[in-house]
Amino acid sequence: MSELALIERIGARARRRPGTELGIGDDAALLSVGGTAVVTQDLLVEGVHFRRATTSTRDLGHKALAVNLSDLAAMGAEPVAALVGLCLPPGGVSEAEVDELYAGMEALAERHGVTVAGGDVTAGPALVLAIAAVGRPSAGVAPVLRAGGRSGDVLCVTGALGASAAGLLLLERPELAGAVPGPVADRLRAAHLRPEPRVEAGRALARAGARAMLDISDGVALDGARLARASGARAVLELARLPLAEGVAEVASAAGRDALRLAAAGGEDYELLAAIAPAAVEPARRGAPCPLTPVGRLEQGPPGLVALDAAGAAVELEAGGWEHDV
Amino acid sequence: MSELALIERIGARARRRPGTELGIGDDAALLSVGGTAVVTQDLLVEGVHFRRATTSTRDLGHKALAVNLSDLAAMGAEPVAALVGLCLPPGGVSEAEVDELYAGMEALAERHGVTVAGGDVTAGPALVLAIAAVGRPSAGVAPVLRAGGRSGDVLCVTGALGASAAGLLLLERPELAGAVPGPVADRLRAAHLRPEPRVEAGRALARAGARAMLDISDGVALDGARLARASGARAVLELARLPLAEGVAEVASAAGRDALRLAAAGGEDYELLAAIAPAAVEPARRGAPCPLTPVGRLEQGPPGLVALDAAGAAVELEAGGWEHDV
Repeated sequence: MSELALIERIGARARRRPGTELGIGDDAALLSVGGTAVVTQDLLVEGVHFRRATTSTRDLGHKALAVNLSDLAAMGAEPVAALVGLCLPPGGVSEAEVDELYAGMEALAERHGVTVAGGDVTAGPALVLAIAAVGRPSAGVAPVLRAGGRSGDVLCVTGALGASAAGLLLLERPELAGAVPGPVADRLRAAHLRPEPRVEAGRALARAGARAMLDISDGVALDGARLARASGARAVLELARLPLAEGVAEVASAAGRDALRLAAAGGEDYELLAAIAPAAVEPARRGAPCPLTPVGRLEQGPPGLVALDAAGAAVELEAGGWEHDV
Repeated sequence: MSELALIERIGARARRRPGTELGIGDDAALLSVGGTAVVTQDLLVEGVHFRRATTSTRDLGHKALAVNLSDLAAMGAEPVAALVGLCLPPGGVSEAEVDELYAGMEALAERHGVTVAGGDVTAGPALVLAIAAVGRPSAGVAPVLRAGGRSGDVLCVTGALGASAAGLLLLERPELAGAVPGPVADRLRAAHLRPEPRVEAGRALARAGARAMLDISDGVALDGARLARASGARAVLELARLPLAEGVAEVASAAGRDALRLAAAGGEDYELLAAIAPAAVEPARRGAPCPLTPVGRLEQGPPGLVALDAAGAAVELEAGGWEHDV
């Protein structure tokens, strides 16, 4: 398949949605962002971030867009468009698989009103997806940075944790699947393969006055440390309060792992971690479209994170698989 | 070198320039774009778009940003920021080379007021640069699309053509260098390795009322056909009027190639091709910061491009090296 044919194929599948004045087909796309553009970019590389053996191209399309929308969600922003750069190994990806990849992306884009507004396609030594996403601040609400947290703020997470790490265990060790009912195993694997970005929750938390926020891509412990350092505070994370997704305890146990540590250090949940003033926590919980669970606090002290067990003793957490040597 | 160390290293080198409210270090960057964001993305892949043997990482950093700024130039837009995604083969690129890559990018960014505002770094099987650039429309001037050309418009190119193709010939066949004086050969090689995006010319042409515009990345013949098809017109390209860069004729002759065909079909000049109403051509030439040369016209007829030789006879042009099978 030629690049030109492929670009036409992709252009024919990309639906233009409100906010995109000009999409695929010119030198650049034009996006209505209302003064400030919120922009982010992530790469997914075959053999580093995914394996073709355990990831369909449809799921890959979904996930590549999802991780970028998650970054916009963590700013409390409304996503508008994405640019999709694609390296394809010659002969390595069929036309049908490319269609599936874009179908996975378009299905997620449709749910969030996002337009695939441009990008690039080229040959390359492995399948690489480079996605840049552009959003705009939600009406009347400033973007929420990592650095706005203050001593005394409550740290809250959306949804539940550990599902992606448990799902990855199930994908890599199928013999563990007996630990949970089939539908639960399916949901855990789906959490890893097709994470749902918390776009609505991010906007709701921004409206509710969250002072700092980020998305949990590398585990709440590491991402919590990042938020704390950016805010010049010490984060205290109470492991016993971490909300575990259904089935995580059973899969962790079957794998000989500690469930709370798996939830704290396992990456790719793409939930949000927010620092919220104590008085704003209850209103934020009522306004959120998903569970919002207090898991710790910011306090004065050396910037970083301390994890406590149920007895209040400090716990060392192993680093997750988030950092690749390059 | 770890990803984290590398990201810190890169962050320390990226200077934040006006228009970027928030740069590297959060989930996303914040850019002042004034209502409409102009966004584009290009990938450069080792072994496909460049060879490490003939390209320094400093030049590569320059070129990867330059091709994106060229796309913004072709919209008549003012560049604001870039997101830089980088795949690094383990052990394949030293820290000093990464520094050089960003130094090349920053030097060009400085000249155009652009901030490297974010991005991603990861391991990967080859060196891949995925850059997304964001700009804003020049004050009071709507972005110039490919589709606005009309029958009767004059097709004009900025600068001179063929320099990049001749420079690539010199890089691949060093024995040809004797065809031109050393400084001329240096300029031709530089045109290939470090193309200068026509940002100011693009904005000047937009102000001068250019009706359609694109950047010449794949040769004026192919890009002219694209402009013509988008505008629903037939482009007539007069080969004898193509402005040849100094030394192109001599290098082409030494290589046994026809210079005008090389200039018409050779890619990567990153000059601009604009469709301009006849009455606006002279004012546009006076207002442009570089030579602006009429090379043909748009007329009614089947959308596409016809190239004519000096005698007015139609000429078949071979396709350039712009399309890679994937």
